[in-house]
Amino acid sequence: MTNPESSADSSTPQAGANRECSHSARGVTVPQGFRAASVKAGIKPSGKADLALVVNDGPEFSAAGVFTRNRVVAAPVKVSREALADGQLRAVLYNAGNANACNGALGLRDAQQMQTELAELLNFDSNHVAVCSTGLIGEPMPMDNVSAGIEKLPGVLGNSPDHGEGAARAIMTTDTTVKQTLVNGDGWSLGGMGKGVGMMAPSLATMLVCLTTDLSATPEQLAIALQKATALTFDTLDVDGSTSTNDSVVLMASGASGETTTQEALNEAVLAACADLADQLQADAEGVTKRVKITVEGTTDDLQALNAARTLGRDNLFKCAMFGSDPNWGRVLAAVGMADADMDPDNISVYFNNHAVCKATTGTPAAREVDLSGADIDVRVDLGTGGPGSAFVRTTDLSHDYVEINSAYSS
Amino acid sequence: MTNPESSADSSTPQAGANRECSHSARGVTVPQGFRAASVKAGIKPSGKADLALVVNDGPEFSAAGVFTRNRVVAAPVKVSREALADGQLRAVLYNAGNANACNGALGLRDAQQMQTELAELLNFDSNHVAVCSTGLIGEPMPMDNVSAGIEKLPGVLGNSPDHGEGAARAIMTTDTTVKQTLVNGDGWSLGGMGKGVGMMAPSLATMLVCLTTDLSATPEQLAIALQKATALTFDTLDVDGSTSTNDSVVLMASGASGETTTQEALNEAVLAACADLADQLQADAEGVTKRVKITVEGTTDDLQALNAARTLGRDNLFKCAMFGSDPNWGRVLAAVGMADADMDPDNISVYFNNHAVCKATTGTPAAREVDLSGADIDVRVDLGTGGPGSAFVRTTDLSHDYVEINSAYSS
Repeated sequence: MTNPESSADSSTPQAGANRECSHSARGVTVPQGFRAASVKAGIKPSGKADLALVVNDGPEFSAAGVFTRNRVVAAPVKVSREALADGQLRAVLYNAGNANACNGALGLRDAQQMQTELAELLNFDSNHVAVCSTGLIGEPMPMDNVSAGIEKLPGVLGNSPDHGEGAARAIMTTDTTVKQTLVNGDGWSLGGMGKGVGMMAPSLATMLVCLTTDLSATPEQLAIALQKATALTFDTLDVDGSTSTNDSVVLMASGASGETTTQEALNEAVLAACADLADQLQADAEGVTKRVKITVEGTTDDLQALNAARTLGRDNLFKCAMFGSDPNWGRVLAAVGMADADMDPDNISVYFNNHAVCKATTGTPAAREVDLSGADIDVRVDLGTGGPGSAFVRTTDLSHDYVEINSAYSS
Repeated sequence: MTNPESSADSSTPQAGANRECSHSARGVTVPQGFRAASVKAGIKPSGKADLALVVNDGPEFSAAGVFTRNRVVAAPVKVSREALADGQLRAVLYNAGNANACNGALGLRDAQQMQTELAELLNFDSNHVAVCSTGLIGEPMPMDNVSAGIEKLPGVLGNSPDHGEGAARAIMTTDTTVKQTLVNGDGWSLGGMGKGVGMMAPSLATMLVCLTTDLSATPEQLAIALQKATALTFDTLDVDGSTSTNDSVVLMASGASGETTTQEALNEAVLAACADLADQLQADAEGVTKRVKITVEGTTDDLQALNAARTLGRDNLFKCAMFGSDPNWGRVLAAVGMADADMDPDNISVYFNNHAVCKATTGTPAAREVDLSGADIDVRVDLGTGGPGSAFVRTTDLSHDYVEINSAYSS
């Protein structure tokens, strides 16, 4: 298996590990058995393409999904969860520009209508169509525009890389880069697209991801691989502590390659694709100037380590220090001291870019000279109990641009 | 009892309720039996006064304290907690410019040395002296300067309002206003001073408060009043979700008025003084352009309501919307949907400045026209379960100035 190949038009020059900039084909239409389409339906105020479709032509239709943990969930998430209950999907319909969240009974009717209209056009069971939306919360869907757009979609379906890229472009909101991935196996492949730049701006809802593979796999195999991969990738990416009402990750398998693989190989491929897309999401996060990886160890268990890593990753004073390239380890201690994790408060160590800046809760002599001017910053915290727990999260700095993007455009 | 009288040099024109701008005396030296002092010891790089002392001349020495909940605590907090164990204090020594936090065994020795040096000069038991520090984390105390400053303090003690204001000024870090208060009782009074502007900038540790009263009261009475008051005031003030390693609130009673009062009246006076200082802290918070009060109701109990209010008060997307005067109720729903509180996700209501912007988790027709251009914004969220839990927190917006203050000055 090769490393995932990333979108070539990434705007950040410093690619992370495992990122290969290449013009070779990638995206949801590379695996056999998938077609994609995109049209301009007039949902985005910009007039750009805003409706997309990914169709699984089979012969198999196994699918799995992971959705937002927010208790306030958008109508399309409710519809898609139900559609995925039997582990079978033939298509996912996407729109950007309107999240169809917090629209009450009307929102649910609109999401169901989108599902039904597309299913009838393609002669599928409604129950085999999922719907994902991203955009402004609390605005009714412009259903006349949406329905007219849906009618056009089947006529422009195709399996070329351009069709896949068109779909990836149509789901963008404030994203500045198209986000696609590809993992190649032996006689099979796994492709994907995603969007997301922080939770939203202004109120544009987060992360949508679609993964496709031509492997033959059961829904249960897909669900296992997807849950493991999202726990290590999207769930560890915390731009601003906010969780969208619309987060949706869907994985579909067509079986068109005729190949099968082990659960381990499937896990590895899905993880590689999710990690690549998560890298691209982090690089394009709102206002980001730094990509920060926080690792916490030396506590009782992994969950406690994750609590501490998240607490630090959400601390605005720490995030401002990262923006200022300031090795301000005092803010790290102040933040983790409030975390729900076992620690020895007198035996905490902190490392910036592998330089010890604090040992036994005391600064090292050269602590303030560590160079954090690069775009990638590695922070490691040992909570000093000697326990085996460890975990990491990835976050970004808190910059002027973040404030600007999220405050300047009144809705 | 009158309303508290606030510092006259507040820089924000819109005073909150219960704020009376007045030039009459206020601060820690107004109650009988207290003297204060301040000197320039050379701890602050600016060369301004940075060492302060508040002495209780008795005849009684009851005292109580409330300290940071952070598990990483500064050395002076450890020293002061121990000093307060017997409920008796004769003096509190303050310094600004250095937090004496995360300095290991050296930091603890330095804090003990400050305590001992002052106690010997004033002929007190060391155990009757508390020490409070605020400033940069992780820098050793400049003990030569500190000791020389401590020696000068007894000679400049006095009970005038100017002495109290001098102490209030000496404990300022990035504060832009002197923060003092006064509550008048029948034949007695309760005065106070405080400092704090967010957790810190850059790494200047938060909130120090000193309260004095000439009432006769037991340490237990003081502790009850202080815990009730801080729970409703300082504990509900959440500028950036960060909690300092140095937070300290001390209340001392001299008994010099010869008056006693009921527990209820004492509670009320301490609450009024703390509320007034909390108002001043919020008004002077780093980069603040909006003062936001968040009330959550309609959940099972008060703790759950507090969880939801805190979650919203710490949500950067919500705080950016407040900075932009944007009635973006979708961000309110997305934030509270992640809170650890019982809710009916389909029956949440949101009010901005008493205008309903969301009912039954659906926007109201005029939601986006609510005027949030004023400096004070009131947000009320009903989680829709019909439960009796309710709570409030006070927070601020997230502005360009906050990012600037907390990122631009590399340490």
